[in-house]
Amino acid sequence: MIIIQLSERQEKIVDIVKEGQPITSEAIAKKLELTRATLRPDLAILTMSGILDARPKVGYFYTGKTTLSFISEKIKGIKVADVKSIPIVVSEETSLYDAIVTMFLEDVSSIFITNNGYISGVVSRKDFLKNAIGGTDLHKIPVGVIMTRMPNIVFVKSEDSILSAAIKLIEHEIDSLPVVEEIDRDKRNYKVVGRVTKTTITRLFVELGINS
Amino acid sequence: MIIIQLSERQEKIVDIVKEGQPITSEAIAKKLELTRATLRPDLAILTMSGILDARPKVGYFYTGKTTLSFISEKIKGIKVADVKSIPIVVSEETSLYDAIVTMFLEDVSSIFITNNGYISGVVSRKDFLKNAIGGTDLHKIPVGVIMTRMPNIVFVKSEDSILSAAIKLIEHEIDSLPVVEEIDRDKRNYKVVGRVTKTTITRLFVELGINS
Repeated sequence: MIIIQLSERQEKIVDIVKEGQPITSEAIAKKLELTRATLRPDLAILTMSGILDARPKVGYFYTGKTTLSFISEKIKGIKVADVKSIPIVVSEETSLYDAIVTMFLEDVSSIFITNNGYISGVVSRKDFLKNAIGGTDLHKIPVGVIMTRMPNIVFVKSEDSILSAAIKLIEHEIDSLPVVEEIDRDKRNYKVVGRVTKTTITRLFVELGINS
Repeated sequence: MIIIQLSERQEKIVDIVKEGQPITSEAIAKKLELTRATLRPDLAILTMSGILDARPKVGYFYTGKTTLSFISEKIKGIKVADVKSIPIVVSEETSLYDAIVTMFLEDVSSIFITNNGYISGVVSRKDFLKNAIGGTDLHKIPVGVIMTRMPNIVFVKSEDSILSAAIKLIEHEIDSLPVVEEIDRDKRNYKVVGRVTKTTITRLFVELGINS
């Protein structure tokens, strides 16, 4: 994949085709007072890029394409599996206090709750803070009581695009998504295999900005 | 700006130049068993894109460029001013409890503290949670006591690139950056004019992925 800045002459050719399509290369050459041979590389570039379309014995058409969406294609090609981090998991019986301590030790903004190895809930720093200021006894109440539970958990799968994960983070106004694997479709049992957060997306943004 | 997928023949030409540079168009044509005229559009594309360089009477060189950095250029062109959001601000005397309530009402992950109109501190959801579980009396202690204060506040300015802001968020492991305006360089007085968070970056990532 290469990127080319159109020359002034190529821009002129596009304008000429837009105005008088279909138009033959002879007619374009005449308008520019150039030979067909001189125009050949320009027309090759414009048809290869998909900006112009050439039909034999008819002439050149303007396709309506301007720039192909390179950034979008690059971003859409990145999968959740490529960037996910390790999930931090506790069981439903863990006290709010111990869960908060785990969150600080692991330095994450959300933790996932499992029951018999399957995801049953998600708790965010915001949920913990709400309970902490509300006078809940953090040592007595288990995390299972306050967690967001299935089917209200928003999740992604490893094979999903990272773009779809970012869209879920924004649309649902959450900081973190569990990455799950479906074990039993009928029972809706999911194993947690990763974590995607706004930090994941920000790190990826930095990598795209610096390296690409 | 247009984007072109290199054809098989163009890839071959690049390989031939890599192996035997500098090499004339006659020599390339001979290796491919084609005429020079046939190769002209291919060589035009490869030199226009900067992949090959042509020196008169010497031949073609391989420049070492593969893909120009379109994504990187696009990302580097976005300024903090283009995407910043409104800062949420309280005074140093505000109680931790009232500051937390403000944070919930405004649905932000950090708030900025000002003194006489200038930024004096930053407090995150994490700081609040740490104090809430530590037994601090949230109604009595003012936010000024627990805030991160100058000169330890990491900030950006409106004219900075959003990429540099994202790098600061990642390197300093923080969720939020105040956007400031320098009022008095000697006294290090800054006015808060905005906020950039990992949500800002995630939203921008989604926009780049969908629209560009």
